[in-house]
Amino acid sequence: MRTLLRRVYYVDAFMEEAKRGDILIDGDSIVEIGEEIPISEDMEVLDCKFKKAVIPGLVNAHTHAAMTLLRGLGEERPLKEWLEEKIWPVEAKLTPEDIYWGTSLALLEMTSMGVTAFADMYFEMEEVGSAAQQFGARCALAKGIIGTDESNVEKTLSLIDHFKGQELVNVQIGPHAPYTVPAEMYKRLCDLALDKGVGVHTHFMEAPWERGFLMEKYGMTPVDFLENSGLLSVPVALLAHCVWMEEEEMEKMSCPSVQVAHNPSSNLKLGSGIAPLRGYLDRGVTVSLGTDGAASNNRLDVWEEMRLAALLHKGKELDPTCCKAKEVLKMATFNGARALGFDKVGRIERSWKADLAMIDLDKPHYVGFDCANLVHYLVYAGSSADVVGTMVNGVWVYYHGNYKYKEAEFVRERAQKSRERICS
Amino acid sequence: MRTLLRRVYYVDAFMEEAKRGDILIDGDSIVEIGEEIPISEDMEVLDCKFKKAVIPGLVNAHTHAAMTLLRGLGEERPLKEWLEEKIWPVEAKLTPEDIYWGTSLALLEMTSMGVTAFADMYFEMEEVGSAAQQFGARCALAKGIIGTDESNVEKTLSLIDHFKGQELVNVQIGPHAPYTVPAEMYKRLCDLALDKGVGVHTHFMEAPWERGFLMEKYGMTPVDFLENSGLLSVPVALLAHCVWMEEEEMEKMSCPSVQVAHNPSSNLKLGSGIAPLRGYLDRGVTVSLGTDGAASNNRLDVWEEMRLAALLHKGKELDPTCCKAKEVLKMATFNGARALGFDKVGRIERSWKADLAMIDLDKPHYVGFDCANLVHYLVYAGSSADVVGTMVNGVWVYYHGNYKYKEAEFVRERAQKSRERICS
Repeated sequence: MRTLLRRVYYVDAFMEEAKRGDILIDGDSIVEIGEEIPISEDMEVLDCKFKKAVIPGLVNAHTHAAMTLLRGLGEERPLKEWLEEKIWPVEAKLTPEDIYWGTSLALLEMTSMGVTAFADMYFEMEEVGSAAQQFGARCALAKGIIGTDESNVEKTLSLIDHFKGQELVNVQIGPHAPYTVPAEMYKRLCDLALDKGVGVHTHFMEAPWERGFLMEKYGMTPVDFLENSGLLSVPVALLAHCVWMEEEEMEKMSCPSVQVAHNPSSNLKLGSGIAPLRGYLDRGVTVSLGTDGAASNNRLDVWEEMRLAALLHKGKELDPTCCKAKEVLKMATFNGARALGFDKVGRIERSWKADLAMIDLDKPHYVGFDCANLVHYLVYAGSSADVVGTMVNGVWVYYHGNYKYKEAEFVRERAQKSRERICS
Repeated sequence: MRTLLRRVYYVDAFMEEAKRGDILIDGDSIVEIGEEIPISEDMEVLDCKFKKAVIPGLVNAHTHAAMTLLRGLGEERPLKEWLEEKIWPVEAKLTPEDIYWGTSLALLEMTSMGVTAFADMYFEMEEVGSAAQQFGARCALAKGIIGTDESNVEKTLSLIDHFKGQELVNVQIGPHAPYTVPAEMYKRLCDLALDKGVGVHTHFMEAPWERGFLMEKYGMTPVDFLENSGLLSVPVALLAHCVWMEEEEMEKMSCPSVQVAHNPSSNLKLGSGIAPLRGYLDRGVTVSLGTDGAASNNRLDVWEEMRLAALLHKGKELDPTCCKAKEVLKMATFNGARALGFDKVGRIERSWKADLAMIDLDKPHYVGFDCANLVHYLVYAGSSADVVGTMVNGVWVYYHGNYKYKEAEFVRERAQKSRERICS
């Protein structure tokens, strides 16, 4: 059965402006886009009467999905105290089953908000991938690696094996951060990434003190570290945060491997600072958007990150013309898909994957939109509450309150039980 | 008929933590709060089974509601060009009827998002008040005054007369800004405010160049101007923006009259900057929250401003402990009501006005909430999409998709027509 999205507005980050027309989906892909596609009997026709918009699915390029179970713990404390007294002791209690249900809770939220893919760094990643598969979401999984313990490398290799051939799951290699993983280990993991042809997902320069740490320990600037470790030459170096890079260091980050994941809400909430987004964009560094975990955001709402990214840097730079709506839409869609290592995802284009979000335009805040300004309306006036459908690889994973995953209703109950146990 | 909100969580900015119980509303007020209020036949009972939370209604302390009709015009342009080429020429075409429908469109949005009151500065303010009355919302109206034309004073006086005795409408005096209204005129208007016992609503120090303007024209610092004009001694001086005040100037703003309206989204979007919120809070300056008009936000979502205020300043100050959730809840409720000149509004307390927002907690992002952390959940994880009911003065103005105003369905159609005409 093919799916015809009839009479919709559609727009992606590469189109000059939105268009009106029909989109035909066959299998996992968009197969035709046109002003009026002839209807045939093998089509499920959704006539949207130009009251809906279709955009590429949103990509959450940095999260720890199962941390939904830790949401709200130790709010508004200094970072070190928050981690040591609230987060780590509770994380230590998480079982594989908790990870499954916590990730599922995250997927309840994300898929209902138009998020079609996410990059996750945590542990028990088989559970994370299993939850994503149940929900039908696309993901890139990285087992967080701390220290030099060889068992983590083995777990990563076994994770690669575990999801081999699964179309919706990529595996990446996940050294936690330069202050928890020695430089030599980064080199080893980057070599492994090159060898296996996979990406690397790591935290990088989230806090201001990390620069001093690198200089003191290795005599290296952050960009020296990127170069030295091999991160500039792996297939994908998904660098979460990058809040504290200097302008002159950004040139080298403008290379095919580097994918900065900007997490504006989390960086603000943890008091980490405001990343120099305009600097990256001006130099052609590829930037995607992430929510980070629900303990430091506390939403998993990529739409909110789009809006915040579009607003925040105008205010920081005192320039209403920078970080345009279309740029952040590209960050949240096409760039995110690249950061996760997926091809042909993130555009509304024939032969591209049907990863889409459908938006209800029949709301008061859309009065006045047209093809020329639709992206502005979506980013500045819209919100994830406008999403009515989320399609991944040609399948509706969420549609008008219902999930593809039949056990979705039980997820909250199970997550609640996990929460109660780990917090007791 | 009395209304019993049964088995709800409820919290305001003065409570140590949320409580579970019942709230009884009679006429315009909360008359009883208790663990279990006996039901009687003259009560409409809403049994929420502890799946709903009740908070004081949100107050939008600075907006230009009818600018919903100008949303999305000239996005991402430099401020001067945006105003001169896009906003002002279109504003010049607005008729009183347009103002009515544009304000009504704003009220469709605001009341569905838990906003119970708004402070508006625009023109044709009788229309604004009339729309607010239709929707049942509380408001403080200020006719925007530019220059020294005496007719504006007369219009303000006639506005005061027009709404005399209307419980839900306050009138304030609205000098636009120090760069459009001479200092002498400010004095005259502040004298009038004192004489009439009403507040003054004005823009103040939104852009960085305003400091130089005041120094050059009057030889005054901003705080000298506040003092000299009489703004420090009127009943309410609702100062919108205050982005560019120096720390040492804030002491004098900590007085009963001054009510800073913080508009974080608008300040970011227009490239105006980031107001020094922590400085105000540390010095006891009273701060409320506003959205500004929909042309510069582009949402009228006070919830979004709460979240943004709570996040933004942590990031700016590199301090996750500042601008706490409870502080921003106070800004968005109790402080807002004071800024609009309403007493006994903004708390959940016996004999206080029943201006309330009801929130659906039966959503994935509320898993894990309890009485101690509910405010954190609401501010950091919640959103206006969670609002299911909005009550003003004891009346549901919005409840599960329906408005008190019976013509609400026509509003979008009429607003669309106005939009098309003014943009043609």
